[in-house]
Amino acid sequence: MDIGLIGLGKMGYNIALNMKDHGHNVVAYDCDAQKVREGEKDGFTGAYSVEKLVKKFQGRKIIWLMVPAGKPVDDTIDALLPVLNENDIIIDGGNSHYRDTLGRYEKIKSKGIDFVDVGTSGGIEGARHGACTMVGAQDEVFKYIEPLIKDISVENGYLHTGTNGTGHFVKMVHNGIEYGMLEAIGEGFEVLERSQFQLDFKKIAKVWNHGSVIRGWLMELMENVFKKDPKLDDIKGVIHSNGEGLWTVQEALKLNIAIPVIAESLFTRFRSEKDDTFTGKVIAALRNEFGGHKVEKSNN
Amino acid sequence: MDIGLIGLGKMGYNIALNMKDHGHNVVAYDCDAQKVREGEKDGFTGAYSVEKLVKKFQGRKIIWLMVPAGKPVDDTIDALLPVLNENDIIIDGGNSHYRDTLGRYEKIKSKGIDFVDVGTSGGIEGARHGACTMVGAQDEVFKYIEPLIKDISVENGYLHTGTNGTGHFVKMVHNGIEYGMLEAIGEGFEVLERSQFQLDFKKIAKVWNHGSVIRGWLMELMENVFKKDPKLDDIKGVIHSNGEGLWTVQEALKLNIAIPVIAESLFTRFRSEKDDTFTGKVIAALRNEFGGHKVEKSNN
Repeated sequence: MDIGLIGLGKMGYNIALNMKDHGHNVVAYDCDAQKVREGEKDGFTGAYSVEKLVKKFQGRKIIWLMVPAGKPVDDTIDALLPVLNENDIIIDGGNSHYRDTLGRYEKIKSKGIDFVDVGTSGGIEGARHGACTMVGAQDEVFKYIEPLIKDISVENGYLHTGTNGTGHFVKMVHNGIEYGMLEAIGEGFEVLERSQFQLDFKKIAKVWNHGSVIRGWLMELMENVFKKDPKLDDIKGVIHSNGEGLWTVQEALKLNIAIPVIAESLFTRFRSEKDDTFTGKVIAALRNEFGGHKVEKSNN
Repeated sequence: MDIGLIGLGKMGYNIALNMKDHGHNVVAYDCDAQKVREGEKDGFTGAYSVEKLVKKFQGRKIIWLMVPAGKPVDDTIDALLPVLNENDIIIDGGNSHYRDTLGRYEKIKSKGIDFVDVGTSGGIEGARHGACTMVGAQDEVFKYIEPLIKDISVENGYLHTGTNGTGHFVKMVHNGIEYGMLEAIGEGFEVLERSQFQLDFKKIAKVWNHGSVIRGWLMELMENVFKKDPKLDDIKGVIHSNGEGLWTVQEALKLNIAIPVIAESLFTRFRSEKDDTFTGKVIAALRNEFGGHKVEKSNN
């Protein structure tokens, strides 16, 4: 198939290579012309504007967006709508919030253009060699793009999750679960690390990945991590986040349901980004006030 | 090898079958004589008391305990010590607390008898067809039993974790991580289930197990679960526990480290076992007192 791919970041570039491996013709555009030139060397058909990209197609166009969530997605859609034809298909393969996706679907559909949301998991390695894809789309549109989706996914690694928005919704929840799993793994290794025993974390990660209940891809990665840095001496425990854990918690608040572990995993990330907290200052000050407990002086 | 196996419960019986499959001669004892008779039909050499079991051996004996944690382990060891010889080996393959294991090691070692702790993961299926085993033992003793350990484990699925106690310690932490992972998975599916979308949980579990970041054995089991009961209508969300999550949290308290997700997973289990809580009553009563907020009447 001919695919217009917009956004040659880490994920976009590797998905494009993945598509090319499966015999698809990738017409690639990025706002950074240097990346387009790189892509040409790797066999993509380069396009140096959205308009030029669209002109390289005949028939029903498939335009795959891999741009950062939020305004970049809206801006790209706004640039595309005037130059696309009815029944052309825009696919948002990024990490957009599913509610933005629902809004965009209404807007795009009103122009007679089809819109699909694809949640993509598996990291850069997955994008390159076979991802896990969750696809929100109308049936007819899904069937049309299914060969492409199948090609870029691992075997059994794609699903038509349902109507528009479900691809990004299911991917959001996937990432929420990931937050909790990561935190549980981190806490477990902290108990090992602080214990009285001399333990080899690399070997433990390896054995846990062979026959144990908690075996899985994250534990495989854990072994790789400890191979490179057996005690993680080189890494600071600061954990940033990209939004999907936050969105999962916001969703739970909207639905009035308790997801304490996913919420706590998110809060732990927020805490990890700060050297000190006002919470801590307040509690230390109060303990001093009612019990004369010592406070540590701030350096400010 | 000749193995004396004491305790023919779900795990013990399957480990014994697993040993037999690998050509070992299993001399089996259980306090329930019926289980011993069953075992004889399956090819074990039955023994109807600890003393009789010990008499069936020549040379350095290996006695593998698969009895419930706590008093049953101590009682069995007390029955074994008078009838074992120096350098015989007692292996505790159950879920004992590592601190009990350390105490037992001192007691058993003082008699000149060797003691090994084996943490076993992988569920009943693992016990039967290949487990993940974590072995705390002195080097010489580990080397002596290694062929047996290797046989009952999946490939790369056994590890000499270190000195005595480490097998049970590492297994305890494994289960702590498992608590957090299970809770994260549960919470994620709750968000899916309560959402506005029609979603097929079985298919989602399946796609998440192919190429996604959270793929692993628990997600495979999730697919099996939803195959049997697509919305879990037949199951009540009551979650019991067997101690190892609790012990992991106790360990963190002893070490002064924060493992909020594992702790929260444990508390969520405790809450799930109760229809109502005094916490809830207190808060409802106070909100009524200060704000006139309605309370629901108890049926008692």
